[in-house]
Amino acid sequence: MLNASPFLTFRHFPTAFLYLRPTSRGLFLRQHSPSLPPFSSFTRSAHTMESESFTFGPYKIDPKEVFYSTQLSYAMVNLRPLLPGHVLVCPRRDVKRFIDLTGDETSDLWLTAQKIGRQLESYHKASSLTLAIQDGPQAGQTVPHVHIHILPRKGGDFEKNDEIYDAIDAKEKELKEKLDLDKERKDRSMEEMAEEADQYRKLFI
Amino acid sequence: MLNASPFLTFRHFPTAFLYLRPTSRGLFLRQHSPSLPPFSSFTRSAHTMESESFTFGPYKIDPKEVFYSTQLSYAMVNLRPLLPGHVLVCPRRDVKRFIDLTGDETSDLWLTAQKIGRQLESYHKASSLTLAIQDGPQAGQTVPHVHIHILPRKGGDFEKNDEIYDAIDAKEKELKEKLDLDKERKDRSMEEMAEEADQYRKLFI
Repeated sequence: MLNASPFLTFRHFPTAFLYLRPTSRGLFLRQHSPSLPPFSSFTRSAHTMESESFTFGPYKIDPKEVFYSTQLSYAMVNLRPLLPGHVLVCPRRDVKRFIDLTGDETSDLWLTAQKIGRQLESYHKASSLTLAIQDGPQAGQTVPHVHIHILPRKGGDFEKNDEIYDAIDAKEKELKEKLDLDKERKDRSMEEMAEEADQYRKLFI
Repeated sequence: MLNASPFLTFRHFPTAFLYLRPTSRGLFLRQHSPSLPPFSSFTRSAHTMESESFTFGPYKIDPKEVFYSTQLSYAMVNLRPLLPGHVLVCPRRDVKRFIDLTGDETSDLWLTAQKIGRQLESYHKASSLTLAIQDGPQAGQTVPHVHIHILPRKGGDFEKNDEIYDAIDAKEKELKEKLDLDKERKDRSMEEMAEEADQYRKLFI
C-alpha cells in the first residue's frame, strides 16, 4: 500500500522512469515508416518481436521490454512501474499527438489497450484500470510519442486515488530528464524487466 | 489561470459535477439495447439528436446537452467544466467497464474522442489535451458507465499539471453524491449549457 501524499510523490518515486536509449535519429524524422505493413490485428510471436525494432520518440526500445505488438501498436514494461502491471501502449509510428494517428492506428491502439488491460488486471488480481494519455506538452507529455498509461488498480493501492496521477506526472517529468541525460539505470535489471515481459507475453499467446 | 494547490481542489471546484436526472431504471438494466442500429460512423443531425434518448448509467441525459453522436457513441457538455471545453464521451450502451465494450464500440468511442478533441482544442485555442478513463471503482469511477474525460489544455491553465486530475477526481466524487441526491443544480442554467452544446454542434456539421 502506498500512502504517499501528493507532495511526497517525488520522494516516494524518486527514480520512476522508463529505461530507454537514444538513437542517432532526431525528433520526428520518422513520420511514416516505409516498411510498415498494411494494417492487421495479427499478433507477433515473441521470436518475431525480438528481431523487430521499436522506437519511442527519438529513443530505441529493447525488444526484450516489449511483450505484445500488432502491426500498428506495441506494449512495453516500465523500469519502475508505479504499480504492478503499469505498462505503456504506443503506436509503432513516431506520432506526437493523438489526433495525428490515422483511424486504423487509433482503433488498433485502443483495441490493444483493451486487450492488455483485461489480461493485466486479471494477472495482477486487480479490480479496476486507470487509462490516460497526456496528449501534448501542456497536458504533461514529455516524450513526443503518443503513449497510453495503463495501471491495474486495487482498493487501497494509493491512499487517495488522485495520487496515481501525481505519480504519472512525476514519471513523465523524470522520464524526460533521464532520457536527455542517457543515465545508467540503477533500478531494475534488464533481466528482471525481460522476465516480466516474458510473463506478460505468455498471456497473449 | 487556476492556481489551486491539490489541497484546495474542493474549495476551487466546490460544486463541480454534471447535471443529470435519474430515471426509474436501476443500474445495469440496459446491457444491450435491442433498438441499437448496426455500427456506422454516421453522425446524427442536431434535429435527430434532440429526438433521441441518451443514458449515463441509470441517469437520463437531456439531448440538449449532447452536441455530437454516432450510432454507438455520444459527447455531452458538463454543468461545470473544469476548463473550457471539458466534455465527456460515452458509449450509447450502458457499459460499466472499458473491457466490456465490443470492438466496434471501442473503435467508435476513440475515433469520436479523437474528432471531439481536435475540434475543441482548436475552438478553445488550446495546445494539448488530457484524455482519461477512470475504469472501475478502484480507479475513481463513480458513475458505472464508461466515460472519457477530454480537457483542452493550455500553458498555465493549472499551476501544476497534475492538479487537473485532482479536479477530475473531485468531479467524479461529487458527481455521484449529486446524482444520488438528485439535487437541483445551482450553477449553469440549462440555457447556458444548451448554448454551449449548440456552439459545439456546429463544429461537426
